[in-house]
Amino acid sequence: MKVKTEGFYEILSPRCTVLISTADKEGRPNAAPFSFVTPVSANPPLVLFAATPQRHTLANVRETGEFVLNIVPQQLLDKLWICSKAFPRGVNEINEAGLTERKSAAVKAPGIEECAGWIECRMEFEKEAGDHVLVVGKVVDAECRDEFFKEGQFDVSRAKPVMHIRGTRFVVAETTIEPEAR
Amino acid sequence: MKVKTEGFYEILSPRCTVLISTADKEGRPNAAPFSFVTPVSANPPLVLFAATPQRHTLANVRETGEFVLNIVPQQLLDKLWICSKAFPRGVNEINEAGLTERKSAAVKAPGIEECAGWIECRMEFEKEAGDHVLVVGKVVDAECRDEFFKEGQFDVSRAKPVMHIRGTRFVVAETTIEPEAR
Repeated sequence: MKVKTEGFYEILSPRCTVLISTADKEGRPNAAPFSFVTPVSANPPLVLFAATPQRHTLANVRETGEFVLNIVPQQLLDKLWICSKAFPRGVNEINEAGLTERKSAAVKAPGIEECAGWIECRMEFEKEAGDHVLVVGKVVDAECRDEFFKEGQFDVSRAKPVMHIRGTRFVVAETTIEPEAR
Repeated sequence: MKVKTEGFYEILSPRCTVLISTADKEGRPNAAPFSFVTPVSANPPLVLFAATPQRHTLANVRETGEFVLNIVPQQLLDKLWICSKAFPRGVNEINEAGLTERKSAAVKAPGIEECAGWIECRMEFEKEAGDHVLVVGKVVDAECRDEFFKEGQFDVSRAKPVMHIRGTRFVVAETTIEPEAR
């Protein structure tokens, strides 16, 4: 069946959904969920997210050049949802959701303590794309909770990162599969 | 624990992995898997993927301005893996993997019949980003198999799109969850 082109992103799913934490130039923290996110380069390590122009996240990144991607495990879904609400600028969604700020290693913007991993970034460039703005950042530090590593690899079946389909519908990935023909 | 910044994409996972099908200017089809893919705009509908400069996909998109994202269900994982091999330019990976070309609705590049959904695109712009090139395309047609829609929504738990972690490790998402606090 035909899918409305404006709704194409629903079939390009599920999409790993992160909380992006930032601070404004006065140091006031902000956190908001994003699912239009992807790595785009390994060396140098670059990550991209797309934000609508009115997002406070974008305003903060423009002010400070810094952001942190926080990997959200399944048990934080309700808190992620609280962070998606339209709070006025300057409100600290990390506190509103009952989460804890985490001191970052390489940037001033805080991470979120309860998350499964933290990818600290410095903005490289932005570019307009339709109704969103692409933000590309260089990864300057990356950390992950020890318990989510198994045999030196990130264990998705334990971390259970939340992934978005649409609206309130999310999924968790649990079943690991491998191709037979290597 | 610290994660090497060059390997940060492992914890930004799993990533929905599509087969991108293209044709060169002589009409010879190509298909290759990509997991650095994300929607970036709803209106106009824009999608982005990141390709290393030597990928045949990128050469074809530059020649024709067209590409199709094919949503890959779990049962096609082995065939996706075959398409990831380094075939010489001009080899039709769709045939090599035992898959079938599908006539597209709005572009000359073929889709892949056995896939779960098809997002047809025309290139809008490209931009270098580290060791990859960002390709942004406008969605000109989107379709999905009827059996993967339930109550007007894409049913991920039936379509079971494959998602990549690293190397041969993939996962499928099956369990749908919703936040309690709406």
